[in-house]
Amino acid sequence: MGQDAIDYKRKLAEALRAVKDEGRYRVFADIVRHRGSFPRATFHTPEGKRDIVVWCSNDYLGMGQHPAVVEAMHRAIEEVGAGSGGTRNISGTTHYHVELERELADLHQKEAALLFTSGYAANDATLSTLARILGDCVIISDEMNHASMIEGIKRGGGPKRLWRHNDLAHLEELLSEIDPAQPKIVAFESVYSMDGDIAPIGAICDLARKYGALTYLDEVHAVGLYGPRGGGIAERDDVLEKVDIIEGTLAKGFGVMGGYIAASADLVDVVRSYAPGFIFSTSLAPVLVAGVLAAVRHLKASDAERERHQERAATLRQMLADAGLPVMMCESHIVPVMVGDPVTCKQVSDDLLRDFGIYVQPINYPTVPRGTERLRFTPCPVHTDEMMRDLVEALDQVWTRRKIRRAA
Amino acid sequence: MGQDAIDYKRKLAEALRAVKDEGRYRVFADIVRHRGSFPRATFHTPEGKRDIVVWCSNDYLGMGQHPAVVEAMHRAIEEVGAGSGGTRNISGTTHYHVELERELADLHQKEAALLFTSGYAANDATLSTLARILGDCVIISDEMNHASMIEGIKRGGGPKRLWRHNDLAHLEELLSEIDPAQPKIVAFESVYSMDGDIAPIGAICDLARKYGALTYLDEVHAVGLYGPRGGGIAERDDVLEKVDIIEGTLAKGFGVMGGYIAASADLVDVVRSYAPGFIFSTSLAPVLVAGVLAAVRHLKASDAERERHQERAATLRQMLADAGLPVMMCESHIVPVMVGDPVTCKQVSDDLLRDFGIYVQPINYPTVPRGTERLRFTPCPVHTDEMMRDLVEALDQVWTRRKIRRAA
Repeated sequence: MGQDAIDYKRKLAEALRAVKDEGRYRVFADIVRHRGSFPRATFHTPEGKRDIVVWCSNDYLGMGQHPAVVEAMHRAIEEVGAGSGGTRNISGTTHYHVELERELADLHQKEAALLFTSGYAANDATLSTLARILGDCVIISDEMNHASMIEGIKRGGGPKRLWRHNDLAHLEELLSEIDPAQPKIVAFESVYSMDGDIAPIGAICDLARKYGALTYLDEVHAVGLYGPRGGGIAERDDVLEKVDIIEGTLAKGFGVMGGYIAASADLVDVVRSYAPGFIFSTSLAPVLVAGVLAAVRHLKASDAERERHQERAATLRQMLADAGLPVMMCESHIVPVMVGDPVTCKQVSDDLLRDFGIYVQPINYPTVPRGTERLRFTPCPVHTDEMMRDLVEALDQVWTRRKIRRAA
Repeated sequence: MGQDAIDYKRKLAEALRAVKDEGRYRVFADIVRHRGSFPRATFHTPEGKRDIVVWCSNDYLGMGQHPAVVEAMHRAIEEVGAGSGGTRNISGTTHYHVELERELADLHQKEAALLFTSGYAANDATLSTLARILGDCVIISDEMNHASMIEGIKRGGGPKRLWRHNDLAHLEELLSEIDPAQPKIVAFESVYSMDGDIAPIGAICDLARKYGALTYLDEVHAVGLYGPRGGGIAERDDVLEKVDIIEGTLAKGFGVMGGYIAASADLVDVVRSYAPGFIFSTSLAPVLVAGVLAAVRHLKASDAERERHQERAATLRQMLADAGLPVMMCESHIVPVMVGDPVTCKQVSDDLLRDFGIYVQPINYPTVPRGTERLRFTPCPVHTDEMMRDLVEALDQVWTRRKIRRAA
């Protein structure tokens, strides 16, 4: 940049310094997972490679290495090649896409589903488009909602009310204050990914219905993982029909990549027809769609992965509590351990990787509120008892070395 | 939706009727390409399957079926499995990502590059983040810019000036009117995908520099296709060092999926550190990244695909002109044929598919301005002379049958 009148370089350097000064500058760990022996992986460092155990993957069930998924992906590459070659409208709709949308609509017992290149894009495009199409639509948004929902709501440009996290009384207070004739959407998540707590979906939907609001539920951290067929917490709680729009991901429980919504045929058709983020993106590569199809079909029929997953999470949580480590006792599969400071959080993560070959990222602002920096463990069905003992022992040592607060 | 107070169903149905009344309701063709014999594909209809020739794919060079790409993808699945398992920061950075970012930075002769899940996400995240970080930054945007740039500029929330398409005098007029001390970005494309015309990159950058503006160039329809190593029009014109930020796609010339930017190390680091659309998305699946790595490396060394591509486009354009069809005589690889009405455009596309097994989507609003509806052909190195003769003959028949205006 040779521009002289304005010091762009300085502006950029200042923005970076601000992040560094807060101790939240992110260094991406360069890793290569080992298919067939995940959670083991190779960590690439300037000094060479070393073997590690991954403790922070969102491939919650290990479906990313499931033989049916891997085989379906190989077959799709052989059949149709690499990319789709276009947007959904311009040559980018393949039979894989059509089949997966049917499969996902069925999973959530909705009339239709629509694929996006990411869960982020699904939230962003759907919420912004609905707000615009419904006209002066208020979105009542749980204060802990994910960044992609917040961005979608902002982009929609309509009014927004922040609702205290999972607080039914506050939700009703807000709903009762809004003009009954004004369109409204209650937007929330089922499993909150950083605290691991779970929303009372049925009660929220009942309130929404009472006040004439649509319900928009992000099940990103639940699809594949909960419910008799992997339909998420709404399926587990038997309240699927109360939710108007369900949003999910293909990148976590299903182990691949992409996002989607499931809803009534007309609602899905409106998003399909109006959302720039859907219309103008090249569609998901068929190889990914084929892999997801295999994962969804497998998890509709098999409960084994879900049962083992819950058992592993409960076991690790108990082991951490027994060691006096400040684990958050949530009811889901997420196992957060509180540190409370961004610099220490990064140090602990560095210690674990360097001294113990244990990989868990520090979770700092803006992913969580300042002052609640944490390590977030995601035990998978493939984490063994031995790996858990190693992890607890390592944390215990680092906690002592760094003089971090133990559980109360 | 059982809400009674507000008739959501009617609102959604009205939005759909508006699209249908304009004749621009999109019906996605359900197709399956045949790897190894692309542009041939199978079209799935309610009445059964049939063989077609695809004429509207953005897999411009056919890299989506290149043996090196296919082989690299198979290998990656064997090595690491399906998805990356996380965002770039939380276990989703693999060595494939690190290598591809290096390869792309080198391709554009920049210090760094950053991957996104789509070109749309790259434009949206980068432009909005830069506008916010630079503070009260004006974006001077070519009026024909892609929807993803427009959305990114809107999301940034700063001031915007629309600049008449490729008009240097108007660009200078706008630049000279803005406070010299105010940060500014000139945002434009190299190849405009619907008209196929090409921007005077060097002259635009010279003006931008004169007035202290950064330059943001979308080379989505040029990377892989132009320049001695596939670095795009900026490489072809030998002006790479004049462009501050280059944005590209992995889904067209490189045949797979995803998007990226290449720029100075600090600029890339700012986007990496601040853009929610980057931070909060699961990273590209390693299988995609591995395929792109093979495609980029192949096209850095081989000119054969680029030469054949240009020859095919020029040949088709000449054949259409000789037949008196209203082809737009642009200088790039895009071959648009004007229809000028959304309903007729859709009818022509339906006729071609039904009666001739020729698949080309109608391009209607909002992809192009109303009144300029068109068919947009993208001849690839794999389209034969015979396919072209069949196409021109079919168009000639449909033009007569539908009484559409011929070339002047």
